[in-house]
Amino acid sequence: MELLTFSQYQLVYNAFSFTIAVMGAATIFLFLGRSQVAAPYKTAVTISGLVTAIALYHYLRIFASWESAYAIQNGVVKASGVAFNDAYRYVDWLLTVPLLLLELILVMRLSAEETFKKGAMLSGLAAIMVLLGYPGEISADPGTRWLWWGLSMIPFLIIVFQLLVGLSKSIEAQPAAARGLVSSARWITLITWSFYPIVFILPMMGITGGSATTAVQVGYTIADILAKAAFGIYIWVIAVRKSEATV
Amino acid sequence: MELLTFSQYQLVYNAFSFTIAVMGAATIFLFLGRSQVAAPYKTAVTISGLVTAIALYHYLRIFASWESAYAIQNGVVKASGVAFNDAYRYVDWLLTVPLLLLELILVMRLSAEETFKKGAMLSGLAAIMVLLGYPGEISADPGTRWLWWGLSMIPFLIIVFQLLVGLSKSIEAQPAAARGLVSSARWITLITWSFYPIVFILPMMGITGGSATTAVQVGYTIADILAKAAFGIYIWVIAVRKSEATV
Repeated sequence: MELLTFSQYQLVYNAFSFTIAVMGAATIFLFLGRSQVAAPYKTAVTISGLVTAIALYHYLRIFASWESAYAIQNGVVKASGVAFNDAYRYVDWLLTVPLLLLELILVMRLSAEETFKKGAMLSGLAAIMVLLGYPGEISADPGTRWLWWGLSMIPFLIIVFQLLVGLSKSIEAQPAAARGLVSSARWITLITWSFYPIVFILPMMGITGGSATTAVQVGYTIADILAKAAFGIYIWVIAVRKSEATV
Repeated sequence: MELLTFSQYQLVYNAFSFTIAVMGAATIFLFLGRSQVAAPYKTAVTISGLVTAIALYHYLRIFASWESAYAIQNGVVKASGVAFNDAYRYVDWLLTVPLLLLELILVMRLSAEETFKKGAMLSGLAAIMVLLGYPGEISADPGTRWLWWGLSMIPFLIIVFQLLVGLSKSIEAQPAAARGLVSSARWITLITWSFYPIVFILPMMGITGGSATTAVQVGYTIADILAKAAFGIYIWVIAVRKSEATV
């Protein structure tokens, strides 16, 4: 296994610690901020906080796994013999990615029937997308990585289509004060989510060894902060605006 | 003792970590969501959250026991000499399985007398069912396993009969908006609970060694997620609908 320079090791280490602080702070913010939104939006804010809480748990595990995977001696990074557990990310995403789409659907406050229908479809597609990515992630062979990347892109593109086209009518039905915000939330989802397939292909683009490990870990970390903590707080802002519009 | 392949070890490890995240998230969801239901349903939701909280505690213990039971060297899984503690599951079930039936009885909102009568009978039967399963679980002898499995099935079948026949009248008395949901909750109980006796007999069906260990651990884990976290959230949904029907 090609190893890391000490600065690369430190960069990833500090990025993980930073993310623990961000996810913890976002969780507290969302659970406290839940009292500031009207009854119909409480579940959307609860789920936003659950997503960052689940990510907090997994970043604590990822941080510990990173620490135990390397042994540092006089500034030289050596493998400790314990493998870094990549699966934590996928286990996290399997839970949080469907929940992120539920946040968006719940804050829109559609009819009960439409909430159930769209929620079940989008979160099902999101779970399939994550499951299809995993066999590629744990492979070092570019061909295998490309195959699973391509398969995983199918549910991804269906979700993109559903967000941009399938939800158009529901967005037109939003109160004027929230229409622009809800529409932007779709775009934030699409932009932050597109980080993941890009980070996934970095090791297939000629970036190898320590640079690839560092780019993938830091890339996924930035994507998680934007897609979970920043997005969750945005959902809370929408819930606050819509609560004010109701009153 | 026949041991595991590294992928089997990892699969169980990641399934336990996933379950810790699920039970933690479900507990937070239920304790926050308790504020969204009317007074008569608060205890049912509290107990739903207690069940996932107790499971969270036990999965933290189970995860640690799994880690300490094996020593990994260069991708080879060896026994560390410390036994994996199977009893955590039975201790968990002894507490949570009676509570799961209480959730269902409480969300039905029967008369005080009927709640006590049916609650005491069903939770007593559930405790006896779990206690009778344990001597079989810790035995490697198929004959012993079948004996205790059979004995444990007696209270299980009485519970099935009580849910399907004994509760019929009470279900007809539910408000229209909740009748279908409460009736489905019985079926969800029966379907998720039937996973356990099936997983129990896997080692008696010719599945041996690492495959049996993996199938049993992953099987019980899936059953616990469905019977505790998913069922608890379903109870919360019933409580929300019945609260709305009251207002």
